[in-house]
Amino acid sequence: MAELIASFRDGLRVGDHTPADRALRFADGIFETIPLWRGEPLYRREHSARWRRGLRALRMPNVNLNDAIAPALALAPARALLRVSAYALGGSGYQRPERLEPMVWLDLNACAPDPWRAQPALRLRWCALRLAVQPALAGIKHLNRLEQILARAEWRDPAIHEGLLCDQDGQVIEGTVSNLFIVRDGRVQTPLLDRCGVAGVLRARILKKLAPEASEARLTRADVLAADELFVCNSVRGIRPVAQLGTRRFALGAVTRELIERLRCEAGAAFYQEDIR
Amino acid sequence: MAELIASFRDGLRVGDHTPADRALRFADGIFETIPLWRGEPLYRREHSARWRRGLRALRMPNVNLNDAIAPALALAPARALLRVSAYALGGSGYQRPERLEPMVWLDLNACAPDPWRAQPALRLRWCALRLAVQPALAGIKHLNRLEQILARAEWRDPAIHEGLLCDQDGQVIEGTVSNLFIVRDGRVQTPLLDRCGVAGVLRARILKKLAPEASEARLTRADVLAADELFVCNSVRGIRPVAQLGTRRFALGAVTRELIERLRCEAGAAFYQEDIR
Repeated sequence: MAELIASFRDGLRVGDHTPADRALRFADGIFETIPLWRGEPLYRREHSARWRRGLRALRMPNVNLNDAIAPALALAPARALLRVSAYALGGSGYQRPERLEPMVWLDLNACAPDPWRAQPALRLRWCALRLAVQPALAGIKHLNRLEQILARAEWRDPAIHEGLLCDQDGQVIEGTVSNLFIVRDGRVQTPLLDRCGVAGVLRARILKKLAPEASEARLTRADVLAADELFVCNSVRGIRPVAQLGTRRFALGAVTRELIERLRCEAGAAFYQEDIR
Repeated sequence: MAELIASFRDGLRVGDHTPADRALRFADGIFETIPLWRGEPLYRREHSARWRRGLRALRMPNVNLNDAIAPALALAPARALLRVSAYALGGSGYQRPERLEPMVWLDLNACAPDPWRAQPALRLRWCALRLAVQPALAGIKHLNRLEQILARAEWRDPAIHEGLLCDQDGQVIEGTVSNLFIVRDGRVQTPLLDRCGVAGVLRARILKKLAPEASEARLTRADVLAADELFVCNSVRGIRPVAQLGTRRFALGAVTRELIERLRCEAGAAFYQEDIR
């Protein structure tokens, strides 16, 4: 490996940048953003499952998520957000070291106000950017998020809450920070994420527990526009009905309402009530 | 934006991680690895051109590369490698701040021994991983490099020097750290990089100056295997003939030899002679 002579930030010489290292250089790793209510992760099991899948997909050794996050839980206020990342460090260029020991980084944050909070139902747009198809990285929460950043940079109008992304073949995949569900004739569906997209923790919880009748499917724009109800979900922001997508308006339907009610009965669901601190 | 309460590295509480910030969290930016010979970049113009294209593709404000790297040049030994990165910082989640001021990070490194040096000609393999097609990011040197890392992790045999990558449609694109050229019936071709891949600086120099007769084309595996000569290039390692790809062997041909000779006449080409320090 090359020997470092000096580093500069914005033209000024700086010392050691150990925490950055390979993480800064290649974004070689995964992360989870975990809502905490009274020091407990809301969806410990679902976060652990995705974390394990991510480490496996990136060929990184397993790291127990419960052990990894433990130091931060004791310090957490009643309502908090914990970001945990595992980075592959060392090696030379793209080649990792033979014996890989991931670095675990935790950021414990107070909750910021939910940018979607002002509206009971959301306004969505279609993003122009198309997600690349990459089955080797599909579903996991890795650190290569330029597509989401470019998609989110497509609009600044605060009246638009979320943008929906299609893949290169025109299949509808997800929002920039949320997963999408559609309801048609009482049937609940969400895009299959075997080729791209991030399989959200609340999406997993909905499929497994809150609406086990829901199914994964390849969905086109036409399928989405023909739906009776739309909602998006995100483990930090909960389940949120969609009032408008482009020019198409949607009413708040019975299925979405029922799901929001079921979410309200989950352990830790008080997290979603912002007035409780 | 959420207020940070505490950060931990591998379970231990750490202070501020300012240099990391958004760069650590999202790899939102670009980089160049610039060979320096006697304090001068070998291919200043080509690096600047790709740097500008990258900033534009990522919708980041322009940063003059010459100004950005100046502080490190004075410190450089005769033969050195400069890594320069521009990171978009700030904002909230995937949403960047309205007024984006990129952070520029420089790492000046002594040259490590070239891992390809032992062999006059290289042995290559086909990688199983297929590159995703993403025209919005094609050609630029952005920081989302998980595909290259996964591809490089496919082999550890030091007798194999490089792996070739195809895209999701089976088109041949590049090596994990190099660009590919093929020579057939005297005609020189390199894969078109309009849908994925990194457009290397030495590749650009070859197309513009060293072999202006060369052209970009969509190439299949069959095209590559039917070639008379293969070579790969990389601005740090130069032009290197390919002796073997999988089981197919290639002779060192006249066209490759002539190009290596032309490279030897370039300003700063002494950089490629490792015995000179």
